[in-house]
Amino acid sequence: MPTLESPPAQPQVINPKLIIPFVNSVRQVFTTMVGVTTTVGRPHIKQIPAASYDVSSIIGFSGDLVGSVVVSFQMEAAKKLVEAFAGSVMDPLSPDFCDAIGELSNMISGSAKKDLGVNASITVPSVIIGANHSIARLKDVPCLVVPCSTPMGDFAVEISIKQVNKPA
Amino acid sequence: MPTLESPPAQPQVINPKLIIPFVNSVRQVFTTMVGVTTTVGRPHIKQIPAASYDVSSIIGFSGDLVGSVVVSFQMEAAKKLVEAFAGSVMDPLSPDFCDAIGELSNMISGSAKKDLGVNASITVPSVIIGANHSIARLKDVPCLVVPCSTPMGDFAVEISIKQVNKPA
Repeated sequence: MPTLESPPAQPQVINPKLIIPFVNSVRQVFTTMVGVTTTVGRPHIKQIPAASYDVSSIIGFSGDLVGSVVVSFQMEAAKKLVEAFAGSVMDPLSPDFCDAIGELSNMISGSAKKDLGVNASITVPSVIIGANHSIARLKDVPCLVVPCSTPMGDFAVEISIKQVNKPA
Repeated sequence: MPTLESPPAQPQVINPKLIIPFVNSVRQVFTTMVGVTTTVGRPHIKQIPAASYDVSSIIGFSGDLVGSVVVSFQMEAAKKLVEAFAGSVMDPLSPDFCDAIGELSNMISGSAKKDLGVNASITVPSVIIGANHSIARLKDVPCLVVPCSTPMGDFAVEISIKQVNKPA
């Protein structure tokens, strides 16, 4: 079981060049697709899986970038943002609601990946619905939390990726 | 928002050749790494995100295989299986517990990917902790649930992948 024998301390550095494209794409996607202005707070390293949310969308990265990017919402914010995005009220238990949340995160990660200019693949989104869940990753990839607020509610983007090869 | 305009019906077929390597690797990983025999129940297509769990590990696939594979546990089963796997009792809120759950799912997906002989990448695991959460995927990839039971408790493997290219 190799991962349990790896050093317990999480690396506390994350390359800012990896983060800026995500901050830009979050702002752009929510402005153009949802019609809300996003205020981005001070990013911080996630030490423990303490912050918990009701709705999260996970996109995995592989290739030159390894890890995952999660967009997490409280339920009320998710409902309002999805309504503005899709143009109609959606039941949070419906597949369409999950699709809308997944599509927002897909646009954020897809656009950021393009800006980064790396040879990486992203997975289709997995959308988690469940009050107060938390998401943990393997210890060797640091996780940066970017808090975001909008007039419709707050959300967070959790970026837990590392670069395996330099960008072209 | 293209995905909401795609056909609403989920494809109800999934290639059995994609499933068998996962069933084999689940049996093998739990026998060799956890020391329990796994009884695999009848797989069924997941229609709605109804089944809910307490602990899940998501691994994303990209390349010739697209989608995700999730291993989901009730908390009591997860605690007992992790204890048998790691050789010590672990706090479910600790990073080591999440690492152990993630490592089990990583071995299952890694071994199945090898057997499939496809050119696909898998992501590092994301581990979700939260009572009664459910996981949804995009509608164009069917999700097959493989129920598994062990003397230490039950779990499920949810396979939601499609093949983009034929294996070599």
